[in-house]
Amino acid sequence: MALSREGLIEAVSAQMPAKRWKHTQGVMESAVVLAEKYGADPVKADIAAILHDVAKYWPVAEMEAVIRDNGLNIELLHHDKQLWHSEVGAFVAERDYGVSDSEIINAIRWHTSGRVGMSLLDKVVCLADYIEPGRDFPGVEYIREQAQRSLEEGLIAGFDSTISLLLSQRRVIYPLTVLSRNDLIVQL
Amino acid sequence: MALSREGLIEAVSAQMPAKRWKHTQGVMESAVVLAEKYGADPVKADIAAILHDVAKYWPVAEMEAVIRDNGLNIELLHHDKQLWHSEVGAFVAERDYGVSDSEIINAIRWHTSGRVGMSLLDKVVCLADYIEPGRDFPGVEYIREQAQRSLEEGLIAGFDSTISLLLSQRRVIYPLTVLSRNDLIVQL
Repeated sequence: MALSREGLIEAVSAQMPAKRWKHTQGVMESAVVLAEKYGADPVKADIAAILHDVAKYWPVAEMEAVIRDNGLNIELLHHDKQLWHSEVGAFVAERDYGVSDSEIINAIRWHTSGRVGMSLLDKVVCLADYIEPGRDFPGVEYIREQAQRSLEEGLIAGFDSTISLLLSQRRVIYPLTVLSRNDLIVQL
Repeated sequence: MALSREGLIEAVSAQMPAKRWKHTQGVMESAVVLAEKYGADPVKADIAAILHDVAKYWPVAEMEAVIRDNGLNIELLHHDKQLWHSEVGAFVAERDYGVSDSEIINAIRWHTSGRVGMSLLDKVVCLADYIEPGRDFPGVEYIREQAQRSLEEGLIAGFDSTISLLLSQRRVIYPLTVLSRNDLIVQL
């Protein structure tokens, strides 16, 4: 790690409103709890959580430029902007913050959509993002309950809530979210 | 057409229980109404409707053999068996019933999942399958109402109901259904 944990926290928290940093602190807390419960590395979970939303408040044009200029997944540009920050965050975690651990980078990259074949750390960070203590959307309690049963049950409940929300809001559903959910169901 | 309409009805109805044939008659009726309302060819809609479920009651092993032996979409074999009969139906419509019109064949092939870039006839047959008079599943009235607004609104409501059902039943969602729905939303 090029920066100390404290240096990382200082640099990342400076890039978002206080409210979002509070959310990030919640994800850090939940990610460490889930990592300890399910046998993932809590230190990696903590670092991935600190960085997961690093690009969340970047201007859209800046995210787009990073995606285009660095050969990242350009397909994302045809989908909801909410998905861009994960890809950009993974890239800047490595480039700007010196994170070289591919497990951490992947957990940042896939924390919104999931992916087919999610790693243990992917699952921990993605689920922590759904259930951190500050979340209060309808259905979050059910996801928290399922998270007690297994990472997979928690994530299925989380992805189901995302897909249902997009259906009810008549918004495009990112196909990878559906594939990730299907993959978890087949795994169980 | 190698067979007369009456010959086709006789041959197809013999391959399914009376109840399913009654459903097919409903789809024929609704498909013609939708075709006339939205400017599709009602004669083609009628023929596609007659044949759409021709393979629905075939033994699974027989459907699988047709898919494997004829280079059809083998990916389907990893998904719900409910999806197989559309692909098999399209194939046998051509091979066994002499249907050579590719619009009709496609409308049979895509009547369950939809596809990205659905044709007018695809939309008519797929939507008729959702709303034919014999259907009484929860939410069908909403789909019928939307079908009065446009083919696309009707189909979005139909696909949404399918995706919601699969979510609630914890079943795998066929990705093409999501892509078809997304495509219709982008079209509108």
